[in-house]
Amino acid sequence: MSGGEIERLIQLLAKLPGLGPRSARRAVLHMLKRREALMGPIAEAIRAVADAILPCGVCGNLDTTDPCAICADPRRDAALVCVVENVADLWAIERTASFRGRYHVLGGILSALDGVRPEDLNIASLVARCAAGEVHEAILAMNATVDGQSTAHYLTDRLAGTPVEISRLAHGVPIGGELDYLDEGTLAAALRARRRF
Amino acid sequence: MSGGEIERLIQLLAKLPGLGPRSARRAVLHMLKRREALMGPIAEAIRAVADAILPCGVCGNLDTTDPCAICADPRRDAALVCVVENVADLWAIERTASFRGRYHVLGGILSALDGVRPEDLNIASLVARCAAGEVHEAILAMNATVDGQSTAHYLTDRLAGTPVEISRLAHGVPIGGELDYLDEGTLAAALRARRRF
Repeated sequence: MSGGEIERLIQLLAKLPGLGPRSARRAVLHMLKRREALMGPIAEAIRAVADAILPCGVCGNLDTTDPCAICADPRRDAALVCVVENVADLWAIERTASFRGRYHVLGGILSALDGVRPEDLNIASLVARCAAGEVHEAILAMNATVDGQSTAHYLTDRLAGTPVEISRLAHGVPIGGELDYLDEGTLAAALRARRRF
Repeated sequence: MSGGEIERLIQLLAKLPGLGPRSARRAVLHMLKRREALMGPIAEAIRAVADAILPCGVCGNLDTTDPCAICADPRRDAALVCVVENVADLWAIERTASFRGRYHVLGGILSALDGVRPEDLNIASLVARCAAGEVHEAILAMNATVDGQSTAHYLTDRLAGTPVEISRLAHGVPIGGELDYLDEGTLAAALRARRRF
């Protein structure tokens, strides 16, 4: 069908989430059409990221510097730490442009099914950070799933001996959400957490 | 949010068809998680393709050799040439594993709207190939769209002076297709082209 190099590139790209063999083929064809504009720059960009990115020794975020840009930014509130499962969730919160504290990336979620134990996650470093005194509040921003909430409960226990206040994200009606289409659990949580208008 | 390198890679990947900013972000996060297994190999694979791939001087296919592997393969029938719009269509036909002839890649389709004229496509080389005498049949495998069919008609005119026989792909009910869901044009074409059972 084509050179082995093309086939190999398609197979590699097909491993990425959201790309199957079919869309990997389309992506490669598109790159072939715009070879100068896309292939060189993409190869270099991947190489640059692979060479430059390392985990932050403080919070576990991935960045080109250690400590990461967020931990090194003096304008960000070091007393407020948002605990997230992974870097994707950190990026999601950063996109809201409404959080001016810092982060702690667990690197996963406790899961009996997948055999993820507390020592597999960045929990000891979180406890040490919270015990050190600079952090006043830890926001547990886990997913609203069974594993996410178990992890949040476990963290609450582990952080009990430290001076930090522990909070969690609010549950409720998503912005733009219609009550008729909402599951009962969310609606019940939104009712319980109702606020004065 | 993250190092400029990551942002740049996401923006580049988001330009690929089928990948928006959101899936480009997911792909990059996935690569970051499996840095050794994915980033190096993908960067090298893209680089290898960019360096090695060139258009075939005979048919316009993209391959690591010129003439391409198909044009150079003596087991493939040089008397039978399938004319396709682009390399994606060539790959699609190769995947059927049912065509043992060779190809001619036009590199596009005539389009008054997009300003694509005959001299923008590999038409002169097709006419020359057909006039040279080795080719007995040219299969016009254009899309069944208005532009595709106009191009096919134009090619029929251009090839009229050459000794080749001109054919086109059959229209009809797709395999697995249900008549009730089929458009009238396809159904009418399938009726007209009915064959003895």
